[in-house]
Amino acid sequence: MKALEDKILKEGEVYPGNVLKVGSFLNHCIDVPFMCECGKEFFRLFDGCGVNKILTVEASGIAVAVLTAQYFGCPAVFAKKAKTSNIADDVYSAPVKSYTHNCINQVMIEKKYLNPGDKVLVIDDFLAHGEALTGLFKLIEDAGAEVVGAGIVIEKAFQDGGKDLRKRGFRIESLARISGMDAETGSISFIN
Amino acid sequence: MKALEDKILKEGEVYPGNVLKVGSFLNHCIDVPFMCECGKEFFRLFDGCGVNKILTVEASGIAVAVLTAQYFGCPAVFAKKAKTSNIADDVYSAPVKSYTHNCINQVMIEKKYLNPGDKVLVIDDFLAHGEALTGLFKLIEDAGAEVVGAGIVIEKAFQDGGKDLRKRGFRIESLARISGMDAETGSISFIN
Repeated sequence: MKALEDKILKEGEVYPGNVLKVGSFLNHCIDVPFMCECGKEFFRLFDGCGVNKILTVEASGIAVAVLTAQYFGCPAVFAKKAKTSNIADDVYSAPVKSYTHNCINQVMIEKKYLNPGDKVLVIDDFLAHGEALTGLFKLIEDAGAEVVGAGIVIEKAFQDGGKDLRKRGFRIESLARISGMDAETGSISFIN
Repeated sequence: MKALEDKILKEGEVYPGNVLKVGSFLNHCIDVPFMCECGKEFFRLFDGCGVNKILTVEASGIAVAVLTAQYFGCPAVFAKKAKTSNIADDVYSAPVKSYTHNCINQVMIEKKYLNPGDKVLVIDDFLAHGEALTGLFKLIEDAGAEVVGAGIVIEKAFQDGGKDLRKRGFRIESLARISGMDAETGSISFIN
């Protein structure tokens, strides 16, 4: 998605350790009109696949997930990262390593929100090592539901998550695929 | 908003300790088409107030905030609850007690995303003791920006947050105002 690549080049900030900050439009301040365009693009890509549910994980996946879900006219479920006093015991769960927060979260979803027969599209802001996607796919499969695929805003294609998941047969559509970044020069390059 | 009251009566579950679970449409599984209607209602209420930014706090405020922001055609910023490796040091912050998680979070926002001259509408899923709103209003005022008001999906009007904030002069618009709940009978009543 050319407009997204342009936006990453204009607003993205590269830091050491392969950190790309896109807080100005994706995961702190959300450029809602622009993210609606991303949602429309996910709808164009997965229209006709029978998607009846969007799944993401808190927190930064929620915005793009709900803005996408409105084009499918379906609900969006977000997996939670910590057990709170108002989550039921009856959950599907999976461990997900967070490189950003340097910890392992147990992500979970109440069982009643994922059912056999559901055709689930996973939406997330980033794909790098594929930890979050792997965990979310596990939740869907544990529920006996179907993984339609995943729509990702930004894939760090120089890391192995996307490659590994595609090799396992999952359909992964990323709106921008970064082939390399350089914290010293600030340069970012894309796979077309 | 009558449709919201009906939905709360139909899907809400009351638990001891004044806990109302609305995970089926608001804060775990999000009924996106329905929450778009809530967003339209917030737009109707605050249209003409010059709102140029929506502010909420992660995680469960994000969905309704971005779905509302699209009608204003403006960005939505979410305050973060924990300092992560990819948040700048230059933040506005405020302590917010969470009754759900039974802890005090420091909520924070990078300074560049709130500026003097911004007219900010705060959107959140719940208002009870008013801790989150008070913290978010502080961030806005620290930035020299203007609080237009707050749009809340569900207000527990039997707790004092809304009353106190209105007394301080803030405009608080809640789409459903609960006057009482009973965990034994499951009954929920509203203020009209």
